[in-house]
Amino acid sequence: MQIETTNQDSSKEKPATWAAPRPSAERNYPMNCWWVGAFSSEVGRELLGRWLLDTPVLFYRSEEGDVVALEDRCPHRAAPLSLGCLQGDEVQCGYHGFRFDRSGANTWVPSARTAVRSARIRAFPVIEKPPYVWVYLGDESVIDDVPPPPVLEWAEDDSFGMIKGRMEIKANYMLLKENVLDLTHFGYVHASTFKITDWVDLPEFTANDTTATYRQFFKESPLSPAYAVPLGLPPGIPYDRDNYGSFESPALQRGQVDFLDPKTNAVTGRFRVAHATTPINQNTMQYFWVLGRDHGRSPEELDAFSKFIQTGFEEDEAMIVAIQAAEDRKTSPVAPREVSVKMDTAGIQARRIVQKWMDRETG
Amino acid sequence: MQIETTNQDSSKEKPATWAAPRPSAERNYPMNCWWVGAFSSEVGRELLGRWLLDTPVLFYRSEEGDVVALEDRCPHRAAPLSLGCLQGDEVQCGYHGFRFDRSGANTWVPSARTAVRSARIRAFPVIEKPPYVWVYLGDESVIDDVPPPPVLEWAEDDSFGMIKGRMEIKANYMLLKENVLDLTHFGYVHASTFKITDWVDLPEFTANDTTATYRQFFKESPLSPAYAVPLGLPPGIPYDRDNYGSFESPALQRGQVDFLDPKTNAVTGRFRVAHATTPINQNTMQYFWVLGRDHGRSPEELDAFSKFIQTGFEEDEAMIVAIQAAEDRKTSPVAPREVSVKMDTAGIQARRIVQKWMDRETG
Amino acid sequence: MQIETTNQDSSKEKPATWAAPRPSAERNYPMNCWWVGAFSSEVGRELLGRWLLDTPVLFYRSEEGDVVALEDRCPHRAAPLSLGCLQGDEVQCGYHGFRFDRSGANTWVPSARTAVRSARIRAFPVIEKPPYVWVYLGDESVIDDVPPPPVLEWAEDDSFGMIKGRMEIKANYMLLKENVLDLTHFGYVHASTFKITDWVDLPEFTANDTTATYRQFFKESPLSPAYAVPLGLPPGIPYDRDNYGSFESPALQRGQVDFLDPKTNAVTGRFRVAHATTPINQNTMQYFWVLGRDHGRSPEELDAFSKFIQTGFEEDEAMIVAIQAAEDRKTSPVAPREVSVKMDTAGIQARRIVQKWMDRETG
Repeated sequence: MQIETTNQDSSKEKPATWAAPRPSAERNYPMNCWWVGAFSSEVGRELLGRWLLDTPVLFYRSEEGDVVALEDRCPHRAAPLSLGCLQGDEVQCGYHGFRFDRSGANTWVPSARTAVRSARIRAFPVIEKPPYVWVYLGDESVIDDVPPPPVLEWAEDDSFGMIKGRMEIKANYMLLKENVLDLTHFGYVHASTFKITDWVDLPEFTANDTTATYRQFFKESPLSPAYAVPLGLPPGIPYDRDNYGSFESPALQRGQVDFLDPKTNAVTGRFRVAHATTPINQNTMQYFWVLGRDHGRSPEELDAFSKFIQTGFEEDEAMIVAIQAAEDRKTSPVAPREVSVKMDTAGIQARRIVQKWMDRETG
Repeated sequence: MQIETTNQDSSKEKPATWAAPRPSAERNYPMNCWWVGAFSSEVGRELLGRWLLDTPVLFYRSEEGDVVALEDRCPHRAAPLSLGCLQGDEVQCGYHGFRFDRSGANTWVPSARTAVRSARIRAFPVIEKPPYVWVYLGDESVIDDVPPPPVLEWAEDDSFGMIKGRMEIKANYMLLKENVLDLTHFGYVHASTFKITDWVDLPEFTANDTTATYRQFFKESPLSPAYAVPLGLPPGIPYDRDNYGSFESPALQRGQVDFLDPKTNAVTGRFRVAHATTPINQNTMQYFWVLGRDHGRSPEELDAFSKFIQTGFEEDEAMIVAIQAAEDRKTSPVAPREVSVKMDTAGIQARRIVQKWMDRETG
Repeated sequence: MQIETTNQDSSKEKPATWAAPRPSAERNYPMNCWWVGAFSSEVGRELLGRWLLDTPVLFYRSEEGDVVALEDRCPHRAAPLSLGCLQGDEVQCGYHGFRFDRSGANTWVPSARTAVRSARIRAFPVIEKPPYVWVYLGDESVIDDVPPPPVLEWAEDDSFGMIKGRMEIKANYMLLKENVLDLTHFGYVHASTFKITDWVDLPEFTANDTTATYRQFFKESPLSPAYAVPLGLPPGIPYDRDNYGSFESPALQRGQVDFLDPKTNAVTGRFRVAHATTPINQNTMQYFWVLGRDHGRSPEELDAFSKFIQTGFEEDEAMIVAIQAAEDRKTSPVAPREVSVKMDTAGIQARRIVQKWMDRETG
């Protein structure tokens, strides 16, 4: 415990107590980026404490319904504020009763019978776009230069039914990014669940400075039961699929499938997925997934869909957790070589884009 | 495992195998200090092994009843001696049968059929002052310059009933020191248990080179049920309390409350508490608490008292463990600022006194 | 996660991705040594992944019955191959379907529709000598200079009944080596189980550059029930025992007892034990023990023997795990002195032999 005593009862304004965590050389995630901090549905009038980007963050909803994100650490004696309680729109520390408003300003120190201006905590910019609450934990002086959170149009489209889930996964967030950018893993990791085994050929890859994409058209390929049943089609029927995915920011990737009747070329169903991953620290992530489709939308169907997807995503989790665990055990100072093939194009482009985000911070 | 082979069957006397743990730059506890090692009631004819100040310590009681404290590590092959057994007043290693007397001298090596003088372990000075066993793990050449263990007069006063408990807390010992020196936490941490919510104003603080104190007089303040019931008074009755606390050494803090009839100014009850904390290592402590009062002393009342106090102290534990855990997660090389207010005066004075203890060791 | 991107679809041959783990200065086990990787009975047509010498190793048996040992890490995206499956004699990665033959060569990358020559993994030399599978994880360029695995003649002798077991022990492998080279521990660690308490005097020690041995003859010494009952003798009967043990390589120690009728000097029973220990990493080991005897060989007797031995070996485990745990807690930069006596002669000679193995690697 390092202790730095500052002036007692100081009243001159000071910078917030926050400092950038972990030197960038040791991390592979950018601070100056909008990340998903929580689902909208998780944030209410109960205090929610969560570590994101090696930073303790407190979420709650104001009486008017706005999401507030504050540094989850009392500047007095370092208690997590999430152990305290709300008093109106202010959070009161559970240790000695210091109070902070939604701007992070101290409004009351009981023993001082006044506010103490130096006892400021950081308030983090928040954008709520259901189902996601986006939060910005980086350098606020450059926030205007940072791309805004990607928008999920379909999430606001009433013709889509939606399911979602959160997983805390013991792996670096990039392991999941790469997982969903190389869909050949379907044929192995999910061979017995999703049963989508036709993903073998190279898709078309495109990339620019901010986005990496793949696109593949499956012509009259037998439809997996996972796709066919919600569409009301017999499993295995030859059907067309237009499959597209993109890395949109270090925080979000999206995927989509349009199903087309091979006779009419009409789109008969749309399937969408968003993979939001937020590093908790260098080897653990929060994974906020959302899936939507414009068919098979009854509550029973969506409930079965949710259980099914959860099973499949746990297969991904098992694989990337095993990779991370093995990497963590390595004692060799030499990083083993890594062999990439053309199918890794999107994943490698995503790494390069992340590196550009990192470079902008440190350069 | 670092291995240093010394002469086999060496018979020339050597210094004890003990070496000061952890460089002082990395710790915030002094070695050259009397610390509580155990409750008297914990030490008997069973071997008790316990890590204190990053040092393995073995306690037992001799046939005559004296407390013995030895290094809990056989100098032969590093087995914890506490896994062995007593043979009279000697401890016999459970691995190969080496025996040591209470001075730490080897008295028998079975395979050598003799004592091996180089196989000496350190014997630690001990002072038993029930309910505490104090132990000195530091540099014995300066022990005469080190203040003796503080005395709890009331602990030897038959008019007091006593309760006590030990908690192993995953937090640096100073977090508990500071906890009990800022009693405004009662109004938040213990709001629903102890219900002592009138501690808001600043007490009177005094400090010198060795002691930091606070004192507060509560005039006709409603008495918490926790205080009133044992005194046979109705909860909430306006009553006078003289509340005093002091940091006596890095090892011990004490607190006391005298209850006074506001009409007569007569002391009608005395309440005493001792907080002994001993670092296990830099982020874990043994907490030996003792409370006494000269009223409400029936076994039933003391039993209820004990359960009640345990509940309250677990509230403190939860708070300081959360603080320690958050500090341990921090990856930033920069220590966050800490904002102190006047109410922290005693806690900050305690830190300074501890620093003086540390400086004496290293200077 | 350190990432090194290499040429995509590279086709020029490259060295295997393996690199020596942990610099030798930090470890006390040689890489250039044959170690036991598994029992023969553990290796079949199911993939067996196991960390040995800080290296992930995959074992399986080919369709013809040969044991194959490969690096258990796909060079593509670092997935443990043991999470995949066998396709004939090839292993298929469970992540994206890369396949490797028993030489470690890549034979198929599904998305590339061809083999990718750069995606090579290391194949480790293996020698199967039941009950052991020996594996060589070191520098193959010097393998011819490395002593071959020791041979257990009695393990191939039909007149012996055999029991065996594997324990994963949280201690450095040398702690077990030293344990079985100083049998005075029988009188303390196993006093209530094996009840062999006559091992007090010094045995005869011999050592050369590769082997350290002890030998002790017990003349008409009361026979422990553990020895007497399988021989059909009354426990406690005065009997002769010729007790011999040797450190044969860093990987293996053996012990043997010949029982002799004190009247006739005839050998009436033979008892053999092999202690194979393989470091998982610096503070954990795999312990593969095998015991055999040419008497008391009925299935019931061997079953009871096995349970009995397991109980005794768990006593050893408890002791050395406690030693390792205490060593791991030490924060002092100074290694405590270690006092050795004549009985430690074989153990110290074993350390010196291990050091020679280490020196050969680094020099």
